[in-house]
Amino acid sequence: MQKTLIHATEIAVKFSEVDSLGIVWHGHYVRYFEDGREAFGKAYGLDYLTVYNNHYVTPIVSIDCKYKQVLRYGDSVIIETEYVPSEAARLHFNYKLLNAATREVVVTASTVQVFLARDSFMLQLTNPEFFEEWKKKHSLV
Amino acid sequence: MQKTLIHATEIAVKFSEVDSLGIVWHGHYVRYFEDGREAFGKAYGLDYLTVYNNHYVTPIVSIDCKYKQVLRYGDSVIIETEYVPSEAARLHFNYKLLNAATREVVVTASTVQVFLARDSFMLQLTNPEFFEEWKKKHSLV
Amino acid sequence: MQKTLIHATEIAVKFSEVDSLGIVWHGHYVRYFEDGREAFGKAYGLDYLTVYNNHYVTPIVSIDCKYKQVLRYGDSVIIETEYVPSEAARLHFNYKLLNAATREVVVTASTVQVFLARDSFMLQLTNPEFFEEWKKKHSLV
Amino acid sequence: MQKTLIHATEIAVKFSEVDSLGIVWHGHYVRYFEDGREAFGKAYGLDYLTVYNNHYVTPIVSIDCKYKQVLRYGDSVIIETEYVPSEAARLHFNYKLLNAATREVVVTASTVQVFLARDSFMLQLTNPEFFEEWKKKHSLV
Repeated sequence: MQKTLIHATEIAVKFSEVDSLGIVWHGHYVRYFEDGREAFGKAYGLDYLTVYNNHYVTPIVSIDCKYKQVLRYGDSVIIETEYVPSEAARLHFNYKLLNAATREVVVTASTVQVFLARDSFMLQLTNPEFFEEWKKKHSLV
Repeated sequence: MQKTLIHATEIAVKFSEVDSLGIVWHGHYVRYFEDGREAFGKAYGLDYLTVYNNHYVTPIVSIDCKYKQVLRYGDSVIIETEYVPSEAARLHFNYKLLNAATREVVVTASTVQVFLARDSFMLQLTNPEFFEEWKKKHSLV
Repeated sequence: MQKTLIHATEIAVKFSEVDSLGIVWHGHYVRYFEDGREAFGKAYGLDYLTVYNNHYVTPIVSIDCKYKQVLRYGDSVIIETEYVPSEAARLHFNYKLLNAATREVVVTASTVQVFLARDSFMLQLTNPEFFEEWKKKHSLV
Repeated sequence: MQKTLIHATEIAVKFSEVDSLGIVWHGHYVRYFEDGREAFGKAYGLDYLTVYNNHYVTPIVSIDCKYKQVLRYGDSVIIETEYVPSEAARLHFNYKLLNAATREVVVTASTVQVFLARDSFMLQLTNPEFFEEWKKKHSLV
């Protein structure tokens, strides 16, 4: 079985995220994924500013999201972010969002990011060196 | 070939939608899909308030989104929203977002919604009557 | 009486802007003011990109906002944006937001912006030349 | 000197809150004030759900906000929320936002909320009983 990295963070639903049906508006989950990805990045040394300081940015090229349950104001959500190993010059994360009180799965999702050179926005077809080193450091290659 | 319905609307990128890379933040596209869906709904009589007044709500259960190009401040985007016929008690839409100036495809996406009874949030396993009538009216069955 | 400039634009409330009380969440009005200001700017040649291309940016330094009535999903709002003449190197706008159907005043507000050099973010203590010309062109000095 | 209550909470700037100038977009501060107010409410027993369960809601009727410094991605902000005693049937809070690293004041602001009956949205001209008790408990009357 291939090794993966996983990180969990918990956040409280904000009042401004709840829609007129009393549930978190579906579009706000994209921010939850970003929160999960950034918490993962801070835990494992792959956060936005680290990537940026290595002269890359990693825009999202694909999101796939399944909604299973709703969240309401007063709820907290656990965001589990999992790095999915890949040989391509891409970042692939899976997300599992759980209602912190009931442990029910609320949302599952997946995102893919590519590497662009920070200043030219040129697509990188091979893995940046700093990212290869990151993978080695975490025994992912 | 099965008949479909398609509707196009154009919106201008807002300053507050552009991130520090100078491009529309990926999460804001979910609102663009909602704008497209609601413009479709108003054109064909299937907008949020019509559904609501028929005692249903239609939360999103799935989003799938591919990003091809970026949008910047000053750009306008054409949102093409297409109804995808289905026998299941679901609403399925495809979206194609085009840069209004260049006609390049910026994003393609797909959403699925289910019908819930408005007050009980009970999942509807068969198509609501008003929706069956809507499909007949538009020769979609 | 001093001459002013005023511009009105109308927008529809979005589903994602309505909170769990069924009313537009108060924080979204700041975006309505920006919509009004940008519509004003496009009408009178003082929009964001015109300012930017003249090598300035104009961040907000003050907002003052009074809420009188609520907006709900389905409502449209008329945003009246008024340029308030001033000798200082500042942009001062007043806003009056009206429910498009009832013409009731929903919100009144006021914003102040300063001029920063676009690249250095250096505060401008005197009016930029392009802005002096803009004021002359519109007989505001 | 009249007694007040004050509470401080710290949050990290999110990537999606930063605009194309590289600074937190001014409109997002309204959410920071809500975060501060809710953290205050949880600390002192006056949070949204406590008020709601007492059959009231407290919409914002006024915001006044002065921007002094900017926040960038990577910054954390300390939100100090202070209850301002008043005899009127209103909630008045002052906010001071500090850059967590430099302790510079970023924003000062003030909000006023009124009490509405939760179900009828009827304006309360006198303080709700639960709120009078809250004030007594905290020696604010």
